[in-house]
Amino acid sequence: MLKRDHYEEDHEDFRASVQQWLERSVKPHTDKHIADKALPREFWLEAGENGFLGLAIPEEYGGAGADDFRFNAVLAEELAKIGAAYPTCVGIHSDITAPYLVRLGTEEQKQRWLPGVASGEILLAIGMTEPSGGSDLAALKTTAVRDGDEWVINGSKTFITNGYSCDLVITAVRTDPEKGAKGITLFAIEADKEGFSRGRKLDKVGMEESDTAELFFENVRVTDAEIIGELNRGFIHMMEELPQERVSCAVANVAQAKQILLETVQYAKDRKAFGQSIGAFQHNKFLLAELVTQIEVAEAYVDKCVAAHARGELSPVEASKAKWWSSQAQSEVLDHCVQIHGGYGFMNEYRVARAWRDARVTKIWAGSNEIMKELIGRDLGF
Amino acid sequence: MLKRDHYEEDHEDFRASVQQWLERSVKPHTDKHIADKALPREFWLEAGENGFLGLAIPEEYGGAGADDFRFNAVLAEELAKIGAAYPTCVGIHSDITAPYLVRLGTEEQKQRWLPGVASGEILLAIGMTEPSGGSDLAALKTTAVRDGDEWVINGSKTFITNGYSCDLVITAVRTDPEKGAKGITLFAIEADKEGFSRGRKLDKVGMEESDTAELFFENVRVTDAEIIGELNRGFIHMMEELPQERVSCAVANVAQAKQILLETVQYAKDRKAFGQSIGAFQHNKFLLAELVTQIEVAEAYVDKCVAAHARGELSPVEASKAKWWSSQAQSEVLDHCVQIHGGYGFMNEYRVARAWRDARVTKIWAGSNEIMKELIGRDLGF
Amino acid sequence: MLKRDHYEEDHEDFRASVQQWLERSVKPHTDKHIADKALPREFWLEAGENGFLGLAIPEEYGGAGADDFRFNAVLAEELAKIGAAYPTCVGIHSDITAPYLVRLGTEEQKQRWLPGVASGEILLAIGMTEPSGGSDLAALKTTAVRDGDEWVINGSKTFITNGYSCDLVITAVRTDPEKGAKGITLFAIEADKEGFSRGRKLDKVGMEESDTAELFFENVRVTDAEIIGELNRGFIHMMEELPQERVSCAVANVAQAKQILLETVQYAKDRKAFGQSIGAFQHNKFLLAELVTQIEVAEAYVDKCVAAHARGELSPVEASKAKWWSSQAQSEVLDHCVQIHGGYGFMNEYRVARAWRDARVTKIWAGSNEIMKELIGRDLGF
Amino acid sequence: MLKRDHYEEDHEDFRASVQQWLERSVKPHTDKHIADKALPREFWLEAGENGFLGLAIPEEYGGAGADDFRFNAVLAEELAKIGAAYPTCVGIHSDITAPYLVRLGTEEQKQRWLPGVASGEILLAIGMTEPSGGSDLAALKTTAVRDGDEWVINGSKTFITNGYSCDLVITAVRTDPEKGAKGITLFAIEADKEGFSRGRKLDKVGMEESDTAELFFENVRVTDAEIIGELNRGFIHMMEELPQERVSCAVANVAQAKQILLETVQYAKDRKAFGQSIGAFQHNKFLLAELVTQIEVAEAYVDKCVAAHARGELSPVEASKAKWWSSQAQSEVLDHCVQIHGGYGFMNEYRVARAWRDARVTKIWAGSNEIMKELIGRDLGF
Repeated sequence: MLKRDHYEEDHEDFRASVQQWLERSVKPHTDKHIADKALPREFWLEAGENGFLGLAIPEEYGGAGADDFRFNAVLAEELAKIGAAYPTCVGIHSDITAPYLVRLGTEEQKQRWLPGVASGEILLAIGMTEPSGGSDLAALKTTAVRDGDEWVINGSKTFITNGYSCDLVITAVRTDPEKGAKGITLFAIEADKEGFSRGRKLDKVGMEESDTAELFFENVRVTDAEIIGELNRGFIHMMEELPQERVSCAVANVAQAKQILLETVQYAKDRKAFGQSIGAFQHNKFLLAELVTQIEVAEAYVDKCVAAHARGELSPVEASKAKWWSSQAQSEVLDHCVQIHGGYGFMNEYRVARAWRDARVTKIWAGSNEIMKELIGRDLGF
Repeated sequence: MLKRDHYEEDHEDFRASVQQWLERSVKPHTDKHIADKALPREFWLEAGENGFLGLAIPEEYGGAGADDFRFNAVLAEELAKIGAAYPTCVGIHSDITAPYLVRLGTEEQKQRWLPGVASGEILLAIGMTEPSGGSDLAALKTTAVRDGDEWVINGSKTFITNGYSCDLVITAVRTDPEKGAKGITLFAIEADKEGFSRGRKLDKVGMEESDTAELFFENVRVTDAEIIGELNRGFIHMMEELPQERVSCAVANVAQAKQILLETVQYAKDRKAFGQSIGAFQHNKFLLAELVTQIEVAEAYVDKCVAAHARGELSPVEASKAKWWSSQAQSEVLDHCVQIHGGYGFMNEYRVARAWRDARVTKIWAGSNEIMKELIGRDLGF
Repeated sequence: MLKRDHYEEDHEDFRASVQQWLERSVKPHTDKHIADKALPREFWLEAGENGFLGLAIPEEYGGAGADDFRFNAVLAEELAKIGAAYPTCVGIHSDITAPYLVRLGTEEQKQRWLPGVASGEILLAIGMTEPSGGSDLAALKTTAVRDGDEWVINGSKTFITNGYSCDLVITAVRTDPEKGAKGITLFAIEADKEGFSRGRKLDKVGMEESDTAELFFENVRVTDAEIIGELNRGFIHMMEELPQERVSCAVANVAQAKQILLETVQYAKDRKAFGQSIGAFQHNKFLLAELVTQIEVAEAYVDKCVAAHARGELSPVEASKAKWWSSQAQSEVLDHCVQIHGGYGFMNEYRVARAWRDARVTKIWAGSNEIMKELIGRDLGF
Repeated sequence: MLKRDHYEEDHEDFRASVQQWLERSVKPHTDKHIADKALPREFWLEAGENGFLGLAIPEEYGGAGADDFRFNAVLAEELAKIGAAYPTCVGIHSDITAPYLVRLGTEEQKQRWLPGVASGEILLAIGMTEPSGGSDLAALKTTAVRDGDEWVINGSKTFITNGYSCDLVITAVRTDPEKGAKGITLFAIEADKEGFSRGRKLDKVGMEESDTAELFFENVRVTDAEIIGELNRGFIHMMEELPQERVSCAVANVAQAKQILLETVQYAKDRKAFGQSIGAFQHNKFLLAELVTQIEVAEAYVDKCVAAHARGELSPVEASKAKWWSSQAQSEVLDHCVQIHGGYGFMNEYRVARAWRDARVTKIWAGSNEIMKELIGRDLGF
């Protein structure tokens, strides 16, 4: 394949260190993670210890101070090769939630939370989606009502990745009922607050290693010290994080599909039928040729987005293209990979089977493909 | 939609009785079936009691003597609406395995087994696929060696539906190592034979209600009385059953997808976003229009095959077309149905989520879609 | 393939007579038809003489009085095998325009025009589409203004099949500017009327044998005797003809694609490369298997619609499904047929090349596929 | 869209000069080129005068000596925006045929032909494909037989772009009948040789501005001075040019489709129906969003290939991926663009109509997509 040219030596050195950690400390436990429907705290603490959770957190708060998204991308790629849930959980923590604190946090907030974020002691989640609302952020029903110096929060969030284990949730809350998108504020809500509770771990089609849960807020009391960014500017704050969220998803989508595809190519060499490698049948040969092309093309585009994002030049719309395209490619490629495995592709003990299930959500979450197309269409002037 | 005209009043009366039974006796227990990864014996006994297991078994052996495949099709449709595993398990028993006994069995064999088949006391499975062989029947490695008046069987079978619970397995065995497809014989092997054992219930991507298992034969001893049909004609015998196997699959494929699609249309009416039913968004509206057309078109073709089969006019090749086309349509339709459900489509408690997982196997089993295309291509003269 | 069971002996006898005529009188001249970008009057007169233009016209007006759409379908199928433009031109005349006269015409109108319609002396066209309006009939701009006992018609129509040669155009005209769809009336406008003129034959991507033209109305004067049906009920009248228009298109779509596909299967047998028939390469073999299935499935659905329409039971929505599905299948199949022909598929002297070009319009005309999906979506309740 | 970063200021300056020439001297004559089914000699002479035909030809032979494929790519892009046949004709001359002379030519051959190639006085074509052989180069039937100091060539070639107008054809000829691919030699055959003749301009589905013809060799006598490269190494020589041929095709595929897509986006803004821009309908909005993404993703991959090729690092297999993927994307995008234009999309006066027809051949020529997949599959180890 064509040389990927946006990674430099530092990034590849970093990749090697991630791989070592995964080989040693993560891969031996993946079955347990699936059975537990969650990553254990040790996973987070070890990741923190190795410096993988605070890449973009300034050194003064315990991070690596590496403001270069390509490191995040390398980490996501390597995690995705283990299983799609890993870059998800880590991405929610590091790429999607932590930036709110780094970018918008007050000095006091940063000191309070960032060291724990970097060490893995404070696991993050982000609370946007609500049971009734799907992708329609402007329809948020969780409210914060002012009561003296405090805010009283009521409502619920659903499909929250890391929701069952998290220690701190950046939560989008309606602070002005009359102002639609302009009446939303972000609050950092600690999981030990009175009135905060969680539902059971959701029973998902895939991504079993990640814990996903509903969160409930019943008269949870917070103060202005827990507001992230500005009052009533939560919607804008969230919009600003979208490119990174989307490109982060895109990186994991492609890396996971590529890894499984490579394993499938190998399987097609090893598995014999009717006297030859099944990959030697022209149908499979052409199909694998198509899939390899499809993944390399998608990767080229995502790489270009990663490079642009590392330079601070990635717009939300371009990131939307990367997200929907990569998730579509991922689903298509994995469906064919299952087929090439025949009956074994339907057995959960085969990685391809889980990968196929895992991937189904990527066309839905973090803004469904339909939402992405809506945004791209608007950008075209419609 | 267009009136389906191949069913008559008798078939619709039968449908009503099936529906009543399912409502009353099956639907309340589906969660348990999933949790158990198997249908309980009561399911089979009740089905037998209601006359659903012996439709095509002559009355003298306890069946209904209704040699009209449309009744089987009605049963498969109604079962598929509950969940894709139900028509699978019943189809393997009644439509796919029982016919070997009815058509090829000796009088003594019929008396020995058919009453139990019709009553549900003898659950059937069919043992074709082997771990190393996939769809390549000519490469069978399970062998029967003559020893005095007996045959000694050694080998294993995998992906056997009903394999964990079955009482009798019609098993394809190599009786002549030198003759390829012409050296295969069918044996009816009772599950209490010494040397017969089963692996655990396989952990599958879907179809959880059906138990699937590996079967092991270690010096299992049988006699000529257990040969089904003629010695060394097993391959031919199997070929003759293929039209029914394939059309049976096709019926269930379409019926399951149609049911979930109808539920999804309803969901798209009920679920609101951005101030309207999500189905009112033109993208979803067009998509649902496409999916409804796709299912109705597939159904028209499968209905035509069912009618032809009921008249004894369905060729294996036409049945292949119905099988691959319907399974492809099923997968495509269900993938879109998941998408329309958004995040809920990824939650196992939603029927659409399970349906999507269940359906993945139908492009693989009972002759993969690739095998179907190979057969159709040969029929074209290539 | 499965037996098509909706045609009876009479229909097949009729098919034979159509085939004879085509062999003898049409096929020898197809190159000339293409070069002329039109069918000559002799084509129409001979078709009339053979009784092919008045199938559904009562005998008293010179027709066959065969109120059984299956004959029309047989004719369309056989014409489509020659080239897609033939069923189009004949269909516009017989299946789409003539019914307005038969169903809605006054006794005087019937006597005036139907004998010529049946004999081929009066060639029909239907004027709906306008340059600015596309499929939006409610936005019609051609107007008729009352002036004494007369109506004065001004405006234009475009994309009119048979437009350059026709003798009589059933034209949708706005008679009440304030009433939208409820202010449209159908007029039968004779081509020798003063003020009526036509543009040049349009230079189309395909369907070259059919003449297509713009029509211009400049103070064309007609009387109530030329109103077809009721004043201001033109929209309703048109809606009532839609099932026949759509199913007529669907029949031709499938028949043309099927014919070219059969020729392509033969080509794939005859053409050798790398030492074997190109159809023997597994990629092509599977592809042809898919295409044959796709066409047979589409045909089964369209046949079912034809049978329903012959019984008077076809709804506009079901006909919409047949139309969009068949045109989509046609395009997909023909694109692959071109590919199988390699470089020859890009040469106009090959039938497949023209067929591919011809077929491009069927997803657009007579209500685009998007309009069909809109209608189906509405029928679902959205 | 994301910034394309492989072009530098020089390339963009060059683009501007190409655009000026096209605006001034080519665009005004495109209708005539279509009607003539050929580009006139003036086109070539002007292109030569402007320095566009000898980009990679050393200065000593009248070229620009710019050994940087990115200039070729810029030229191809700008030509493709005018019409797909332009980069084809120029590409065959400059990118595909001229390199044989530059790379393999003797000093004498270079002096004899290259100045004319650069000036447009000697128009080049390449003769590979034969009527019976398609993509199977090893089956070549055109032969050269040694006769004294001369070679006597007999045979024919077909589908030769520039075939009707060319002055010099690099022709693949069998010089050793027993050695398959190792018995092929390239000869430079001048069009005024006795025994050389051409058929009529082929009547193609599209690409009408390019003349395509059959070439006939009847006892054409040449000497060793006309051998390009080494005797019996023609197959290897051709293989070495494949990356450039394929990437050259890929550049034009994407550029043409992108241009028409941009025009379609504009059309969707301008064209109204049912009271709004047709692009505002969600179906079209999403569709255009998809198409824009599809083109930008394809472009990113092709750009990466161009950059690699400019560095001398593009393998034939990677170029194959770019070729098949881009031609598939081109066809899909243009088919949708036609649909968005409605009936106008079927009228040849609309650019989108011609573009759609033009594009059909790119999946076939220069190694069909099936050949590309075969090569990629082999590279995977199958």
